[in-house]
Amino acid sequence: MKAYTEYLWFNTKNRKELVNISAEVEKHVKQSGVQEGFCLVSAMHITSGIWVNDEEPGLKEDLMEFLDKLAPFKPEYRHHRTGEDNADAHLKRSILHHQVVLPITKGRLDLGPWEQVFYAEFDGQRRKRVVVKIIGE
Amino acid sequence: MKAYTEYLWFNTKNRKELVNISAEVEKHVKQSGVQEGFCLVSAMHITSGIWVNDEEPGLKEDLMEFLDKLAPFKPEYRHHRTGEDNADAHLKRSILHHQVVLPITKGRLDLGPWEQVFYAEFDGQRRKRVVVKIIGE
Amino acid sequence: MKAYTEYLWFNTKNRKELVNISAEVEKHVKQSGVQEGFCLVSAMHITSGIWVNDEEPGLKEDLMEFLDKLAPFKPEYRHHRTGEDNADAHLKRSILHHQVVLPITKGRLDLGPWEQVFYAEFDGQRRKRVVVKIIGE
Repeated sequence: MKAYTEYLWFNTKNRKELVNISAEVEKHVKQSGVQEGFCLVSAMHITSGIWVNDEEPGLKEDLMEFLDKLAPFKPEYRHHRTGEDNADAHLKRSILHHQVVLPITKGRLDLGPWEQVFYAEFDGQRRKRVVVKIIGE
Repeated sequence: MKAYTEYLWFNTKNRKELVNISAEVEKHVKQSGVQEGFCLVSAMHITSGIWVNDEEPGLKEDLMEFLDKLAPFKPEYRHHRTGEDNADAHLKRSILHHQVVLPITKGRLDLGPWEQVFYAEFDGQRRKRVVVKIIGE
Repeated sequence: MKAYTEYLWFNTKNRKELVNISAEVEKHVKQSGVQEGFCLVSAMHITSGIWVNDEEPGLKEDLMEFLDKLAPFKPEYRHHRTGEDNADAHLKRSILHHQVVLPITKGRLDLGPWEQVFYAEFDGQRRKRVVVKIIGE
């Protein structure tokens, strides 16, 4: 069994952003040399997640608006008693989910025709990490 | 390490449907010959997901109503400027999540007593795929 | 490839509770002897989930209040025609998600600095199980 581990760093311009990381993840799959296996992509900071969906600007705005409506940015969260102001970002990560497992078949990510992998930042403008871990043969 | 890959095809009668795929996934686990490992079940189309819960008709209706309330079908999504009408289905997949990893122990799916695996279709009536990928020994 | 399987049992005092299981999962990672691999943590009962986030009391209350608002405890669910009263717990598990895959690197859980693993109980006060399954080398 082969194992390959890499960390992707992000420092987004905006507080909230969807960053398409499909090509970068695919690059690591090739570097790993794994032909058949799983590729875990997991946000290591607890205010960001991973999303697998369409590279379509309108939909990306719809998603962010949808998450804002479910978990709005507002002062009243209990978490803010600690001095933080990002409880909404913790909740957004929690419902979108913070990780995916991508199948690798014949040395490539085995995704559907429109599946793209996004880093979903909900409290950015600082350096944050995603782990890409591949196991297989 | 063994690897086994299969694709399940769906073409649901209704636009929205929950299809119990437990027996089919279990069949592939047996065919794989894997005794100890992981079975990834992942919806490859970006308007459907995977749900692990109870085979109880009332609850299945509750889930669909719940998701409809959170992400209603409506004309106003930005994604619809592309001519599509299924933004709600993208959002439903996003919060339900589109994949699960099922443990395989002693050659069987190692699920809880009521855990059943469902394909969750939110924009059906056309051919769509799910990947079942098994790794282990 | 090594495989290691363990079941964690819970019987929470309260109906709803977040139980930090990071140390227990880490203990099983060590016992498995796996240096590089994946650790699946999955709730086997369909009214509980797994959450990876911050050990901060205010945020934990925020999460539970947030899920209560999205999927309130109430009599009107169709699932309750079966005599059950826990449809809200099924829905909470469904949006929080019931499992995570944790990377193992150099024999340790490869988590971000604030990532803690929680068992999220939504219908407790009875014995329930979580499977911890590790594969790797």
